[in-house]
Amino acid sequence: MRILLSNDDGVHSPGLVALYEGLKSLGNLEVVAPDRDHSGASNALTLNRPLTVEEHPSGFRSIDGTPTDCVHLAVNGLFPESFDRVVSGINTHANLGDDIIYSGTVAAATEGRHLGLPAIAVSLVSEGQNHFETAARVVRMLLESERPLSLGPRSILNVNVPDVPWEELAGFRVTRLGNRERAESAVPMTCPRGKERYWIGAAGKGGDAGPGTDFHAVAQGYVSLTPVHIDMTRHEALVSLRTWADSLPDVHGGGV
Amino acid sequence: MRILLSNDDGVHSPGLVALYEGLKSLGNLEVVAPDRDHSGASNALTLNRPLTVEEHPSGFRSIDGTPTDCVHLAVNGLFPESFDRVVSGINTHANLGDDIIYSGTVAAATEGRHLGLPAIAVSLVSEGQNHFETAARVVRMLLESERPLSLGPRSILNVNVPDVPWEELAGFRVTRLGNRERAESAVPMTCPRGKERYWIGAAGKGGDAGPGTDFHAVAQGYVSLTPVHIDMTRHEALVSLRTWADSLPDVHGGGV
Amino acid sequence: MRILLSNDDGVHSPGLVALYEGLKSLGNLEVVAPDRDHSGASNALTLNRPLTVEEHPSGFRSIDGTPTDCVHLAVNGLFPESFDRVVSGINTHANLGDDIIYSGTVAAATEGRHLGLPAIAVSLVSEGQNHFETAARVVRMLLESERPLSLGPRSILNVNVPDVPWEELAGFRVTRLGNRERAESAVPMTCPRGKERYWIGAAGKGGDAGPGTDFHAVAQGYVSLTPVHIDMTRHEALVSLRTWADSLPDVHGGGV
Amino acid sequence: MRILLSNDDGVHSPGLVALYEGLKSLGNLEVVAPDRDHSGASNALTLNRPLTVEEHPSGFRSIDGTPTDCVHLAVNGLFPESFDRVVSGINTHANLGDDIIYSGTVAAATEGRHLGLPAIAVSLVSEGQNHFETAARVVRMLLESERPLSLGPRSILNVNVPDVPWEELAGFRVTRLGNRERAESAVPMTCPRGKERYWIGAAGKGGDAGPGTDFHAVAQGYVSLTPVHIDMTRHEALVSLRTWADSLPDVHGGGV
Repeated sequence: MRILLSNDDGVHSPGLVALYEGLKSLGNLEVVAPDRDHSGASNALTLNRPLTVEEHPSGFRSIDGTPTDCVHLAVNGLFPESFDRVVSGINTHANLGDDIIYSGTVAAATEGRHLGLPAIAVSLVSEGQNHFETAARVVRMLLESERPLSLGPRSILNVNVPDVPWEELAGFRVTRLGNRERAESAVPMTCPRGKERYWIGAAGKGGDAGPGTDFHAVAQGYVSLTPVHIDMTRHEALVSLRTWADSLPDVHGGGV
Repeated sequence: MRILLSNDDGVHSPGLVALYEGLKSLGNLEVVAPDRDHSGASNALTLNRPLTVEEHPSGFRSIDGTPTDCVHLAVNGLFPESFDRVVSGINTHANLGDDIIYSGTVAAATEGRHLGLPAIAVSLVSEGQNHFETAARVVRMLLESERPLSLGPRSILNVNVPDVPWEELAGFRVTRLGNRERAESAVPMTCPRGKERYWIGAAGKGGDAGPGTDFHAVAQGYVSLTPVHIDMTRHEALVSLRTWADSLPDVHGGGV
Repeated sequence: MRILLSNDDGVHSPGLVALYEGLKSLGNLEVVAPDRDHSGASNALTLNRPLTVEEHPSGFRSIDGTPTDCVHLAVNGLFPESFDRVVSGINTHANLGDDIIYSGTVAAATEGRHLGLPAIAVSLVSEGQNHFETAARVVRMLLESERPLSLGPRSILNVNVPDVPWEELAGFRVTRLGNRERAESAVPMTCPRGKERYWIGAAGKGGDAGPGTDFHAVAQGYVSLTPVHIDMTRHEALVSLRTWADSLPDVHGGGV
Repeated sequence: MRILLSNDDGVHSPGLVALYEGLKSLGNLEVVAPDRDHSGASNALTLNRPLTVEEHPSGFRSIDGTPTDCVHLAVNGLFPESFDRVVSGINTHANLGDDIIYSGTVAAATEGRHLGLPAIAVSLVSEGQNHFETAARVVRMLLESERPLSLGPRSILNVNVPDVPWEELAGFRVTRLGNRERAESAVPMTCPRGKERYWIGAAGKGGDAGPGTDFHAVAQGYVSLTPVHIDMTRHEALVSLRTWADSLPDVHGGGV
């Protein structure tokens, strides 16, 4: 098995090293990750400049771009051989609920899927203990499963692991993404040169975090497994939208 | 009606000006857009620095951040009054099919929805004619409709408009997102200082672009209206994933 | 006379527009400036990516790079015709004393000189009145002088103008660069996500700001004219350094 | 002796590691360097956002900013104890002649001097052999000299070392900065998305590279030692500029 590893915390992140250590016995690994922290990068793709690839003494490669750039370039040009799988992480913080729309970790996995590869995003719901080895062992167990995992088209697996020793994991839970209440207000500040600036506010609290959600599973000590897809069409709305569109004035009838 | 306008091409883009001109009679508009081009920014959110807001003589505001930053800050802190709607665009290129996952234009709209507001993303499928006024008129027609549009929770409307005079529009089509074939390979180059670098390759061709898709609608001269949602849970896969997860070894049973 | 205008506040800065308006009767002007604020950019040159040039409806061009990039590209490739002179500004704040080492405004001028052109950097010592027209008129007077100005090799003129109506200027003073006391300490802060970060502290006070310095001239209401060179060799130290180097152990004698 | 090490190639550069290894027996070292390559950064200082400091397992610290930011923050806030000296390097390429105005390596040293500390910038004139240990040994020899080195106010030592084993060094030469002919023209290119872009051209050839210059010394196999100052006033031009300024029309006399 030939596996591509990436992340959004950067090539020197301890979570990435732990993932590499945990998976290296599974086959042939390549690591291609951003040269610096890109948390919050979402699926951003760098189109206005060429990217530079650097190979480190460890054999890891870094790119001066986003997580999506890394996976795109690795799968689509850097290596002559193709990959069987993409694993992104281990992120040093949770990627739960709505927040994953901003996540670079999840984006690296979805880019892999976009390019035709089964992909997993894995995050540690860190409380400062940094049990990356638990998360790495979870990923290895998932990859070693003899039953094939089929999520359907255009989907990846988003995994969040409680920050505890392996023995303290409660088990696995398949979950849906919860969602948070609205984010807190932007935080204004005056910089030392007297200019007013704004920080994006902290993520919202609670919201839909009840049973069945990823928030709930990890709070109970379970590994959360969420099937995540990248088909953004809201198929359920197609019919009602057609009815509505039919009520629009004829573009040739004037009236606007 | 109080409408927030944003985009990903930057505050000085002619598409944004055309949108403003086309909608200004509808109510109270505020414009908050990136200070420079952020095409490809996806939902990237800036968390590692505070943002600066600049007000221009036109009354437009720019932010040294991403499209998502702009909408987030505008809705969540910059103005004392709330908004009724977010419109993002007019993008100077199409946002069709898979590509929207990278789109800053669509991301600005989804950020508005995320914060509770109905939202529209609008793009001109430009062929160099730059009939922004056609796209602006389409948006105005959508906003002026007397029948309420309900897309269901967490959804926005993604609109792509052919680059033709209003009279040449064929009408409206409700569509699903098509998808492209795999992107072209990365393009290696040697920079003038002798370092090898890589451009992200061009988007793929064709793929699923048949009847029913947004690609097909605009190719036929229609305005494409696609309901797009931000619920990334693949609900259809929950059951099969549960069966699969049950087959994993017990975390307490050892063996791994 | 063919003059290249640039700045470090960005192509949309009112100081740049005022400079253009003030000088346009003198000959053929081209404006090439950064697309966003680059204060503090010093002589930074962008070597790791290609630059993009955008032409605005005003005829001004912007580049997604530093002030030095703008002048370099304008003189060295963008235009078939050569220039007679470079003017950088009008900066919206003073560029006095030690601070000019960080200044993008001064760097744009020194890049012009580096490429063989006489160059002027001009800054308004702003107190919020924004009398850019005064500074523009100063530059025009300097450029219209019939006596040739010779600063010697590799030198530019750094001009700082008090923020007053023309009639209130006290006159011109030729000055040396003063210097400030040491900058204030870095300002630590905790961002809304709990991470500690540091702002570069404010510039130091006073220092060498006595008679003869640029600080003193503008404080007295005079336009300050400072000859600034880019020869960084400290010629006065060559002899004593040779004596010192002779005292070093012989590289082949071992001992280290 | 308490020494601050920095560079512009980034915290993971082999040249920085070699410098650390070569100097660690001299006293107490701290390393604070950019988190990524900042070649060409000149004295750029980051004023529009706060900076983040990360401590690595090696004890090295990185900052998400420029070389000047690193030295400024290290000397002016990060550590309770003060430093005795700043050493910047070992740069993986030469910093000779005019080019040093763009150099982040030299800028890190001048920032140290600006804050009151004796400072050395050191570069390897690399030809692919990467004899960093030679350059490190040169710096150690300079720091261990018993005769005090006095360069005069506001000056640093710029050191360029041939890329050879220690035994092959020809000795030391005290030099002035040479200068190059004008840089080559910008290199236009069309990116894969069809947009025209420009690379800054390569540095110019030859120019003033004769005996006495730093270019000449290293070409002959010598370590080049150049005294470099940061006083940008061209004192020699003050008198002639005063004469010229007296010929300007009286600001109150009108006529302009």
